[in-house]
Amino acid sequence: YAAYNEPHHAAQGEMLKPVDLGAGAPPERNWKGIVIALLVILGVCSLITLSVILLTPGTELAGSDSKLTVEDLFKPEFVVHDPEAKWINDSEVIYRNRDGHVIKFNILTNETDIVLTNTTTYITQTDMSVNFNVAKYSVSPDLKYVLFAYDVKQVSSSYFPVWELDPPEVLNSVLQYAEWGVQGQQLIYIFENNIYYQSDVKSNSLRLTSSGKEGVIFNGIADWLYEEEILQSHVAHWWSPDGERLAFLVLNDTLVPNMALPRFTGSSYPKGKQYPYPKAGQPNPTVKLYVVNLYGPTHTQELTPPDSLKIREHYVAMVKWISKTKTTVRWMSRAQNVSILTVCDTTTGACRHEETSELWLSKQNQEPVFSRDGSRFFLTVPVKQGGRGEFHHIAMFTTQFRADQNEVRHLTSGNWEVTKILAYDESNDNIYFLSTEGSPRRRQLFSVKTVGLFPRHCLTCELNKAHCLFFNAEINPSNQHILLHCKGKLVAKLDANSDKLVIANGCFLCSDLPLKISYPPDFSESRHYGLLLVVDGSPGGQAVSDRFILDWDSVLVSSDNIIVARLDGRGSGFLGQRVLHEVHQRLGTVEVQDQISAVEYMLTFPYIDRTRIGVFGRGYGAYITLMMLKSTDSLLKCSVAMSPVTDWKLYASAFSERYLGMPLRDDSRYQVGILLTHFPMLLSANVHFQHTAELIKNLVKVGANYSMQIYPDEGHFLSQRSRLHLFASLTSFYRECLKEEILPLPDDDEEEEE
Amino acid sequence: YAAYNEPHHAAQGEMLKPVDLGAGAPPERNWKGIVIALLVILGVCSLITLSVILLTPGTELAGSDSKLTVEDLFKPEFVVHDPEAKWINDSEVIYRNRDGHVIKFNILTNETDIVLTNTTTYITQTDMSVNFNVAKYSVSPDLKYVLFAYDVKQVSSSYFPVWELDPPEVLNSVLQYAEWGVQGQQLIYIFENNIYYQSDVKSNSLRLTSSGKEGVIFNGIADWLYEEEILQSHVAHWWSPDGERLAFLVLNDTLVPNMALPRFTGSSYPKGKQYPYPKAGQPNPTVKLYVVNLYGPTHTQELTPPDSLKIREHYVAMVKWISKTKTTVRWMSRAQNVSILTVCDTTTGACRHEETSELWLSKQNQEPVFSRDGSRFFLTVPVKQGGRGEFHHIAMFTTQFRADQNEVRHLTSGNWEVTKILAYDESNDNIYFLSTEGSPRRRQLFSVKTVGLFPRHCLTCELNKAHCLFFNAEINPSNQHILLHCKGKLVAKLDANSDKLVIANGCFLCSDLPLKISYPPDFSESRHYGLLLVVDGSPGGQAVSDRFILDWDSVLVSSDNIIVARLDGRGSGFLGQRVLHEVHQRLGTVEVQDQISAVEYMLTFPYIDRTRIGVFGRGYGAYITLMMLKSTDSLLKCSVAMSPVTDWKLYASAFSERYLGMPLRDDSRYQVGILLTHFPMLLSANVHFQHTAELIKNLVKVGANYSMQIYPDEGHFLSQRSRLHLFASLTSFYRECLKEEILPLPDDDEEEEE
Repeated sequence: YAAYNEPHHAAQGEMLKPVDLGAGAPPERNWKGIVIALLVILGVCSLITLSVILLTPGTELAGSDSKLTVEDLFKPEFVVHDPEAKWINDSEVIYRNRDGHVIKFNILTNETDIVLTNTTTYITQTDMSVNFNVAKYSVSPDLKYVLFAYDVKQVSSSYFPVWELDPPEVLNSVLQYAEWGVQGQQLIYIFENNIYYQSDVKSNSLRLTSSGKEGVIFNGIADWLYEEEILQSHVAHWWSPDGERLAFLVLNDTLVPNMALPRFTGSSYPKGKQYPYPKAGQPNPTVKLYVVNLYGPTHTQELTPPDSLKIREHYVAMVKWISKTKTTVRWMSRAQNVSILTVCDTTTGACRHEETSELWLSKQNQEPVFSRDGSRFFLTVPVKQGGRGEFHHIAMFTTQFRADQNEVRHLTSGNWEVTKILAYDESNDNIYFLSTEGSPRRRQLFSVKTVGLFPRHCLTCELNKAHCLFFNAEINPSNQHILLHCKGKLVAKLDANSDKLVIANGCFLCSDLPLKISYPPDFSESRHYGLLLVVDGSPGGQAVSDRFILDWDSVLVSSDNIIVARLDGRGSGFLGQRVLHEVHQRLGTVEVQDQISAVEYMLTFPYIDRTRIGVFGRGYGAYITLMMLKSTDSLLKCSVAMSPVTDWKLYASAFSERYLGMPLRDDSRYQVGILLTHFPMLLSANVHFQHTAELIKNLVKVGANYSMQIYPDEGHFLSQRSRLHLFASLTSFYRECLKEEILPLPDDDEEEEE
Repeated sequence: YAAYNEPHHAAQGEMLKPVDLGAGAPPERNWKGIVIALLVILGVCSLITLSVILLTPGTELAGSDSKLTVEDLFKPEFVVHDPEAKWINDSEVIYRNRDGHVIKFNILTNETDIVLTNTTTYITQTDMSVNFNVAKYSVSPDLKYVLFAYDVKQVSSSYFPVWELDPPEVLNSVLQYAEWGVQGQQLIYIFENNIYYQSDVKSNSLRLTSSGKEGVIFNGIADWLYEEEILQSHVAHWWSPDGERLAFLVLNDTLVPNMALPRFTGSSYPKGKQYPYPKAGQPNPTVKLYVVNLYGPTHTQELTPPDSLKIREHYVAMVKWISKTKTTVRWMSRAQNVSILTVCDTTTGACRHEETSELWLSKQNQEPVFSRDGSRFFLTVPVKQGGRGEFHHIAMFTTQFRADQNEVRHLTSGNWEVTKILAYDESNDNIYFLSTEGSPRRRQLFSVKTVGLFPRHCLTCELNKAHCLFFNAEINPSNQHILLHCKGKLVAKLDANSDKLVIANGCFLCSDLPLKISYPPDFSESRHYGLLLVVDGSPGGQAVSDRFILDWDSVLVSSDNIIVARLDGRGSGFLGQRVLHEVHQRLGTVEVQDQISAVEYMLTFPYIDRTRIGVFGRGYGAYITLMMLKSTDSLLKCSVAMSPVTDWKLYASAFSERYLGMPLRDDSRYQVGILLTHFPMLLSANVHFQHTAELIKNLVKVGANYSMQIYPDEGHFLSQRSRLHLFASLTSFYRECLKEEILPLPDDDEEEEE
């Protein structure tokens, strides 16, 4: 259910570090000694292995050629392991090791325990063996129970040595969701769009809602639109920190038109799944936010939107508990040009207006960080940085008692962005955050003082041993330790070609857009290479970063001497608001120009063969690809559009309207208006096949030469088999198209023989 | 709604001849002088032009290359004109000329009248111009009115200088069917599955049925199954000869599961069309047959099936009026192994049992020809012909008064088949019929006496000027004149290569299966050619005949030096019952062997390049293609399966069960069981996409290399644009695959120069 079809394969080369942040002492000094070896080793191995294979042709992997193949990408040793580490209390981390065991690790004692082994099989009463999907587990807060997902439907009668969750009234029911609470064994589950609560695994379940109706009214769980475009999660409920209350959305899709998702295989008759899917300009779901108290007599309190949004269509973009009884909520108008942050008392339902944003496209689901008493909070807001436009920086809002207005102080500034505020350590007046300071391609951990001249320190920039350029971080509950997850590091072997990257990343056009070029291992400026431009990501995204990715295009670089390039054109994120806002009200214009300019720029390199230029795009990128084909003549030799968008009127309301506003009659901005005559390849899964169908109709109409692959009955994420097939199809397509034409050599040999 | 997706493009090279059959005189003498020049010219032109272009490389068509192209196939001069001629009374024929005008022609006076011009446009009250679809017209029996089809929905308010048909109660209604009766201006139309009658264009309409329910109960119109597999027509009603009565079927699909036909393009939300479609082993529609009298007080009489079929699931396979009050009806068991012909008195509902067939696969919808008093009728039945098995021949059934049993006399015999009984001329004791006597590839018109030693004469075999090998014929009401339609003639230019055809058509295997090979114009035995095997047609069909066809594969023969072959393997029609019955209970076995044997046989020709063999199949032929790929290794270089059937359980009950019986649990005969690893191209329209989806899943599973084209939202018949695209895709696919690999020649020239 991500915005686009395909997750990056093997996207993370990671490294984990719990970092002691000390108390009061300069953080630079403290963390150095406390790097825990075990966790560092855990993640790094795979990354180094991969880099060597990819970039050093002389290095041999046991039993395989040094060239990367599509099959390699699916080998266990190539799949970058994600330990999914998280704090379970102030001193303990739980993670999955390379073998798949789930481990509990105490950072103070260095002790480890196996919480779960990698194979967890149970035999049912009817002698059926059920392999729990260990990939999806959840440990109860008291560490006594584990929730597993498995297909209940395959088992006719079920008795397990572990507890089984089942709605009381219904036989053969299918749970939509189940989750531990925050205390002991409390848990909720969602079934037929209603929420059920159990105080412990053996207690009876309590039904918290009754309005749920499949495909119509959703309690605590997101409908298609909220999952794809608003919350980016199917979870639409939030536990209070003490587990005594649960906030949840009620989404009413009664008026939303249904989309059909046909399912062709696996049964005698194709089964169409209907689901409400509001397209641009169509009726949206209505949303209400409730809080239910779970201890004592059940009471449900509605939290109402601010008056200005109450009478207009709106979304709930973010909900976060800031104390045992208070939540902060962001409400947003349907047009997504006004949003209001409130703090609500969940016992009375009263909400206080805290901040209004009338900026298009600010980070609407960003969670503010509050002080314990709620009188102060931190949020990133766009701040003007001289002539370079606005960048997201940390603002400190302090509640003023007399007026309904907050005092605002800006803690950071510069031509870079704060990407995430991690925590507010009140006792030490420190804010911890991630930012792009130094380079938009990087993410480093910083702290900033909330007092004085707001001095700022980078905590990870000089972690010499790691050379990590792209971090994620998770802080422990008491703000004393940070778990660092390295998602991309500087590899020594890369140095040979890194100059090229720097050259390419230099200013081009007027707007300094970052371009990333991957060169084949034995690159030589005196040879000629085919070029593949990968158009990835949607507005606000980032394709050029130091985050490690290994995808099918790496095979072309490693094995087929093809140069692969990615550009973050206008509309990209992390480059400041000015770059991002360029696409507002004009999707498919300036970003298309930028991608074409990138190709033209690279054509000035003597080693790029101008007759062998390919382009690939997926989802939004496929839309850009189509627009590129439309506005160029013979620049591109071959192209693939995977799950393309061809008409924004057919796309989700919250996405289309965010960029284009409500559609007008005959709205030309909404139409791709394909007039292509040559278009070699089209890829599509079921979802949004409508766009592909419209495109094919146009292609057939103009007699275009194209080929296609479809993956029927696949959802947003393709199965491994389909991905393998897809990767093989893509690489062989580009290999064939971008290969060097071998011209017959003059017959020197023969002549010599004569 | 044909059994398979695609009509033959430009399939008919036709020639029309009204032939006076005289009265009593030897027919050979009479017709010769009465060939009417106008109609002969009408049809023949296109055929000769085509043949010359295709087969004679030296002949130039003005302004074009002598090689046939896909675009040529769609040029007006290449579309073979079908005059759709028919008798409107004993001396007058109505037909459409080359310019599209509808002409009435009197064979006695030689006079012609234009009944309709080729453009018929009316302006509505709201100034909308409505172009009537002149392609679909129907003239009233009194020649005063014409029915046109047009899209009522596009016109908001409608007033026409012509009469408009509209169900009285409903606004913006869509007619499903409208048709003149047999007298004056009487007509019926069908709307919302109910039949309405008007005695003339200005009278009020009378609703004849009320049970109609969209997609559930069908009155007088066929459901999907009856249209595709039983009646081969959407018409499920029959006028009595005097227009006083109407027989009609009532099909009840209440228990039939629905199939979904998604429609992706043209609206904001894809629209799925649901229609009842019984698959093998699933509940079938129930059928009832009624007769309603239209003059006087309306009375509806049910005609009931014979007792033995009343209690079993059955079909009504054929209904025909044989007098003003009597009909003949064929009832058939669901298993299609028992059928009973009855004659019913429509005033009482009483049916008399006339003939029982317990032969699998006899021609169940064949219409018997009755004498005027109903005491005698003619039918083709399988008759054993020595050691060569049974062939369909004319049997004369004469009613015996005392017993419920008829006397049967066989009028014809031989190792050939009677394909159609045209008429019984009682006054001259003549039966007119078409047969394959002389060659199964041909259809000639014969007469046979119903008295004496049943002498038989060919009426068309010596029509020297025409050289026609394949006739269709329509006799006038008084059996005095026959309209001949030549669908394929011997062309002089063909002679150069016809020897090859004869060689190839010689006996191979033990069963004398006909093989047709098309050779490129400048064919030379000393060269090497790629071979394309076209696997066409389903059981009982015929791919090798002298009927003229011009399809996309002709382009490959003419322009790409590819040899195209077609084989009528076991299971084919017109070769006797033994050949046909070979596939009973074992579809996809012997016919597959035959096609493979045909390829192996042709590999013995020195001029066939064994590294360049391709195969193409459509519908049932695509199923055979898949089975061929499954059972051969490297024989076939490339293949295309268009709208393949991959699982007979997913196919229409009446088709699957006819050949395989009711499906058993895990019925292996029903499964194609694809285990292909290499499969280059797949084509599909919407209908039966389920089969294609299952196939893709399997192909992806085994990592097969294939490509595909789909034509979304197209029905059984592709639009002209899609067909153009399809033909271009097919020809370029095979051109690329079957082209000669040009090996570098030894550098003789260079050496000479030196």
